[in-house]
Amino acid sequence: MSQPHLEHATSVPHIFDRAIALEPQANGTWHGHTSTDYANMIGPFGGVTAATALQALLIQPERLGDPVALTVNFAGPVRDGGFEVRVRLMRSSRSTQHWSVDMVQGDDCVINAIAVFALRRPTWSATEVAMPEVVAADTLAPVGNIMGVRWPQCYDMRFARGGLRGVDGAGDNPDSLTHLWINDKPPRPLDFASLTAICDAFFPRLFSRRAQMVPIGTVSLNIHFHADAATLAQQGSAPVLGVAQGQIFNLGFSDQVAQVWSAQGQLLATSQQAVWFKE
Amino acid sequence: MSQPHLEHATSVPHIFDRAIALEPQANGTWHGHTSTDYANMIGPFGGVTAATALQALLIQPERLGDPVALTVNFAGPVRDGGFEVRVRLMRSSRSTQHWSVDMVQGDDCVINAIAVFALRRPTWSATEVAMPEVVAADTLAPVGNIMGVRWPQCYDMRFARGGLRGVDGAGDNPDSLTHLWINDKPPRPLDFASLTAICDAFFPRLFSRRAQMVPIGTVSLNIHFHADAATLAQQGSAPVLGVAQGQIFNLGFSDQVAQVWSAQGQLLATSQQAVWFKE
Repeated sequence: MSQPHLEHATSVPHIFDRAIALEPQANGTWHGHTSTDYANMIGPFGGVTAATALQALLIQPERLGDPVALTVNFAGPVRDGGFEVRVRLMRSSRSTQHWSVDMVQGDDCVINAIAVFALRRPTWSATEVAMPEVVAADTLAPVGNIMGVRWPQCYDMRFARGGLRGVDGAGDNPDSLTHLWINDKPPRPLDFASLTAICDAFFPRLFSRRAQMVPIGTVSLNIHFHADAATLAQQGSAPVLGVAQGQIFNLGFSDQVAQVWSAQGQLLATSQQAVWFKE
Repeated sequence: MSQPHLEHATSVPHIFDRAIALEPQANGTWHGHTSTDYANMIGPFGGVTAATALQALLIQPERLGDPVALTVNFAGPVRDGGFEVRVRLMRSSRSTQHWSVDMVQGDDCVINAIAVFALRRPTWSATEVAMPEVVAADTLAPVGNIMGVRWPQCYDMRFARGGLRGVDGAGDNPDSLTHLWINDKPPRPLDFASLTAICDAFFPRLFSRRAQMVPIGTVSLNIHFHADAATLAQQGSAPVLGVAQGQIFNLGFSDQVAQVWSAQGQLLATSQQAVWFKE
């Protein structure tokens, strides 16, 4: 395992590090357990499950460089309890690696994921999208209890735009665009695993758009990482700005495109996810 | 195999159907062969390779519904010649299926892909992104020969905005935003396989942005489909509008977000890809 981040001056690992912890098994697989801290309405928060899939790669001794692209397909509901993670290195070159990761519970595949890792090197650089102008995180009030769900309490979330419509009770929104300051609570230095979870921490776009709450479930989360480990470490535990919007809702599925920005205006990750919804 | 589309009144399959054709093998895998029609500068056009990976799923007898999400990771260069495709159904429910697809040449994994299929049903629907206002395809001149590369000649491409900078010789562009009318040449009715290839048919965003041409290679292509098979079939062989832009170029990788619209303004697919570039 990689070094767990320490909570203040104690030797107790951060709840996030406990949630994504994996133990090597004699058969070459890895064993993990869902975390009650990150419980969702049913089963665990998908962002932590996705982060656990990435963690299984980050701890591989032969892992090369940093994650560039991660796709996590949620094959079925993750039940509270233990799970097994199977990792395969599909292809490796001097500067790039391709990985497959499956998570299973009993005979059920619950996560089907693939990833690209690479050594990142300085090159010509440009950012074409602009960070939205938003008020500073510390001028906003943190979100309180959200429908009694546990995992949002593991984050400090402050909406600069576009909260949860069903909670407001104010009718449908014209769009689902959200600007959200977010960081781990208690604070924890940003890394690829926590950034992965944050990419899935925006509430379903349908809940920002519509006043009516319907059953939903993410089926596919695709993340592109645009910073290296050193850049993420520089963020420390400062809040990052998430920008998320649904482009389309149609035939039982919606999408969500998202960007995660550092407070200094550096684009750290972009993501696209596909979400099933009922009705 | 699914029914190949016929070229005009002859019984010869369309070049695209020949390119993505797969033959079942005794060991349960599928055999295919790269197409000289869709040759890239080196090896085959990645869009056709991605379409072949999807085709391997579309032809499975137990396949359920339509593709919702497809991620194709390009694990290594595809050599001209034969290849083997291995398909695994990871999880199946009454309405959703999760698949893995690998493409190998000898001992080398060249494609590492996963997909979600689902029965699409009518639901509440909304599109938040707007189709850009562009001039009609038939008012634009088709692109001619592009650097002598073969595969672009299999498409009718008409740039409404943002062509290839290195070809124009006009210096760097302020952005990489491209509006491109595109359809198969010779015409072929749109389906999920051809739509997949079209999602990869935008030239590298770096080549739209910068006058300087550097080595590039797509490492990950993620596509979300927003229409069902019947809707795609309704498009016939009319051109679709592609919108593509790089959000960021940094540390040796860039991304590209893209949308594919029907001429009538329906969003058919959205995609995100990660591209390696040198310098």
